[in-house]
Amino acid sequence: MHGEGAPRRRSFWGWGWEDRSPDALALEKLARRVSGALGGELRAAPAPSLEAARVPPSKLEVPAALAAFCTADREARIRHTYGRSWRDVYRGFCGDFSPAPDLVAMPRGEEDVAQVLAWAEGARVAVVPYGGGTSVVSGVEPAVGDGYRGSLSLDLSRLDRVLEVDTVSRAARIGAGATGPGLEAQLVPYGLTLRHYPQSFEFSTLGGWIATRAGGHFATLYTHIDDLVESVRMVTPRGIWDSRRLPASGAGPSPDRLALGSEGTLGVITEAWVRLQARPTWRGQASVRFGSFEAAVAALRDIAQAGLYPANCRVLDPQEAFLHRVADDGSAVLLLAFESADGPRDAWLGRALAIAAGHGGVSAGGAGGGGDQESWRVAFFEGPYLLNGLVQLGVVADTFETACTWDRFGALHEGVTARMLEALQAVCGGGALSCRITHAYPDGLAPYYTFIGLGRGAHALSQWEQLKQTASDALLDFGGTITHHHAVGRLHRPWYDRQRPEPFARALSGAKRALDPEWILNPGVLVDPPTGDTGPGVDE
Amino acid sequence: MHGEGAPRRRSFWGWGWEDRSPDALALEKLARRVSGALGGELRAAPAPSLEAARVPPSKLEVPAALAAFCTADREARIRHTYGRSWRDVYRGFCGDFSPAPDLVAMPRGEEDVAQVLAWAEGARVAVVPYGGGTSVVSGVEPAVGDGYRGSLSLDLSRLDRVLEVDTVSRAARIGAGATGPGLEAQLVPYGLTLRHYPQSFEFSTLGGWIATRAGGHFATLYTHIDDLVESVRMVTPRGIWDSRRLPASGAGPSPDRLALGSEGTLGVITEAWVRLQARPTWRGQASVRFGSFEAAVAALRDIAQAGLYPANCRVLDPQEAFLHRVADDGSAVLLLAFESADGPRDAWLGRALAIAAGHGGVSAGGAGGGGDQESWRVAFFEGPYLLNGLVQLGVVADTFETACTWDRFGALHEGVTARMLEALQAVCGGGALSCRITHAYPDGLAPYYTFIGLGRGAHALSQWEQLKQTASDALLDFGGTITHHHAVGRLHRPWYDRQRPEPFARALSGAKRALDPEWILNPGVLVDPPTGDTGPGVDE
Repeated sequence: MHGEGAPRRRSFWGWGWEDRSPDALALEKLARRVSGALGGELRAAPAPSLEAARVPPSKLEVPAALAAFCTADREARIRHTYGRSWRDVYRGFCGDFSPAPDLVAMPRGEEDVAQVLAWAEGARVAVVPYGGGTSVVSGVEPAVGDGYRGSLSLDLSRLDRVLEVDTVSRAARIGAGATGPGLEAQLVPYGLTLRHYPQSFEFSTLGGWIATRAGGHFATLYTHIDDLVESVRMVTPRGIWDSRRLPASGAGPSPDRLALGSEGTLGVITEAWVRLQARPTWRGQASVRFGSFEAAVAALRDIAQAGLYPANCRVLDPQEAFLHRVADDGSAVLLLAFESADGPRDAWLGRALAIAAGHGGVSAGGAGGGGDQESWRVAFFEGPYLLNGLVQLGVVADTFETACTWDRFGALHEGVTARMLEALQAVCGGGALSCRITHAYPDGLAPYYTFIGLGRGAHALSQWEQLKQTASDALLDFGGTITHHHAVGRLHRPWYDRQRPEPFARALSGAKRALDPEWILNPGVLVDPPTGDTGPGVDE
Repeated sequence: MHGEGAPRRRSFWGWGWEDRSPDALALEKLARRVSGALGGELRAAPAPSLEAARVPPSKLEVPAALAAFCTADREARIRHTYGRSWRDVYRGFCGDFSPAPDLVAMPRGEEDVAQVLAWAEGARVAVVPYGGGTSVVSGVEPAVGDGYRGSLSLDLSRLDRVLEVDTVSRAARIGAGATGPGLEAQLVPYGLTLRHYPQSFEFSTLGGWIATRAGGHFATLYTHIDDLVESVRMVTPRGIWDSRRLPASGAGPSPDRLALGSEGTLGVITEAWVRLQARPTWRGQASVRFGSFEAAVAALRDIAQAGLYPANCRVLDPQEAFLHRVADDGSAVLLLAFESADGPRDAWLGRALAIAAGHGGVSAGGAGGGGDQESWRVAFFEGPYLLNGLVQLGVVADTFETACTWDRFGALHEGVTARMLEALQAVCGGGALSCRITHAYPDGLAPYYTFIGLGRGAHALSQWEQLKQTASDALLDFGGTITHHHAVGRLHRPWYDRQRPEPFARALSGAKRALDPEWILNPGVLVDPPTGDTGPGVDE
């Protein structure tokens, strides 16, 4: 725990708070656990030091117009270089901060944002919007290519206020830089909550969630932040994009749905109206064990198609159930929870349990269910901290996730599993793969995989790249999406390009050029300039 | 009723089947009813004849390449001139078919569609996609301006097949030209149903629903076709737009959400995968009477925010309740229904009724509830036929609808009512306005208004225009959308332009130009060419 009074610091290279990164004792324990599973002898290398980090000198001077909120400070640049994928943490651990931005700006409000864009257009500087810095797809990494005079990381963290609350419609206008805990704390006095809990909840921001179509707490129905957004406000190089607050509309394609997932390429999200819930006063939960993963998934499908809409409805395969301390008997586990601010929902939970029982599921009942859910929750939010330790131990480990229709899941799961185990064997001499289902829809599901293998010293990065390639190819080949809720960024571009309709890429590129003719906003992410353009700075 | 063997014909000028348009007796009855309410003496003018219809000669010859499925036939052109708003039916009744397309094409498949677009680009002919021809916003009217050599109405009705059914994921691939009854009939053997019932259900098509973001059966949750679309296939002038079938995705902005609401401006929708439901086996319904509209709306809000998701949840104000034969005692009525293919949902209905009772609602109970729902359903689908009779009687009548957040509804309803009653007084010497709430969301609702006033002979069209302007201005001024589920078309353009974020208009225009550089697809709808362009045919 961090000392009283001392400002708590985030790790400059790894996940989360410095004081919660695994210490020597935890590293030893982790090493034994991984060795037990994968063999090999693991020794933790010491965590890197900020002083030893290698960062190129800034190519840009702080412009006078932005001096009040912009810096070329070395530490700020290091801290805005990466997101938090395995690859990011690995490179940070190695002290390599070569893609660092040349400048970091922390706007105090919308006018500062507009000023940054105006300056950057003229100066041919790429602007990379930065929320909580938790991207796992290099969405915030200023790897913008040679077409720019430099790059600026635009950190929105000062725009962190809940600005307005409408308790009648249950909605709030919130600054894009508000983190999960930050906005929830400000909503407490109103008895309202957003209940959007991505694994990055502690650090990631509302603006980041919207820009990346983040997935959250609810396993059914309101799975993505998309479903909770009432209107979006963005600063674009061609003016303010401010959609009307509406519960629904049929007037043309939805502006919000174009902003959602735009990953900083169309504008900088500064605030949004989001739909809130009353704080739940009733919760019913259960943990149901199945003899096989297939049986648990079949139960999940029937529940998802029954119109019951549980808040939680996740399936853990036997490995995940073991890893997350939910079951150690080889069972697959369905974690089921209903919640309500409108009184009991026993009938709902009862019906879901009956469906699960029809597939051979054995319920651990109320208390047991709650315990499993709690074990799951603790492990869920602790998970990312393990990443730091694994990197220190030289272990290659990562997660990848997708969504597919129910009819394709059998082949997808089999194909992904076979190819990944083969690749782990070839690349790491063995390894492990586990799967959980994080979200369920009437017509499909979202599987989430974790893999782990032993690194070979300096080859770890290329091992990781081979495994990532294998996983991504498999997702596409078997009818999945390259991501259900982790965005595209720079990392997923090759597969995103394969997946999307080609005319849609043209349309998106045309839309971006209409708003960002100098192509300064997060270049390299999502789309390239329209064919015929020779790059940034081209006028019509 | 139509005679056996005789092919049933749609009215060339009015709503629906010729044989169901009000006959002399029905017209007399309608005249008495309207006179009773509004005063005046009403005499029905005879229905117009096809022979007397005035249509300008076609400006185009049928091109050889399209000869197999394209025509310049007078009747075909007349039948593809208008949608079915009051203004459309009025102009048809007057025999004015001046905006008729020069050609009508009925493609037999996707290749024919691509051929039309290729020809039209070269020939500078505007292409107006046509589904069921039920637009109430001039979305299918070829009023394309002078920048084109002519216009072609692209009637997709031959693409009417259910092409593939996935019973595991409960989804089907369906041709864009399939009508409501057409696709439902083809789904019966699978025990599945789309359950998307717009008022135009009998004639409107899947492609039209997607292009216009149609609203349907479900009053909560899956309110728009948007929510039922799994993937969309469109022919664009720059290739096939075919999104991957997915239950959900986080990979960039959703391609489907850009196609949804594109109103034929980005491409021609040829087919889509849509999410289906098992046919309900249980239905619970109730009709709840309230002393005031306000009390009924308050109950509606609490139900919408309780996470119960009724299939039907509509509020009728006392006038609507009377008109639809649901109540004649001055009550406002909440029609409530739950349905399920997964066994009883009594607890759901019970909780919704308890909430309604908390607001002073008195339930008519099971059987009564069913009867009211049935009265409502019959009146709902019969409604549009009345339009033909009202036009023949010289009555100005129309509907308009919107959505707003709960906090704004009081002011919006009051403002709309005051302004419309004032306008009806000024324009028609009096009249009536009624309101129902068609859809409910946790954060807002969709009110739907009907107005009626006496026409003044040849001034009827300008009377209607003044009333439409008053209504639309009021919706925008009080925080609503210009449409919750009737699209923008050409009619709503001025208000749509006010409502949307200006940078979004730029983006949409840029997206369109990337796909449709010659600007041939439904010009005049949604967007204009980017600033700097001088019109169609401009090359970069």
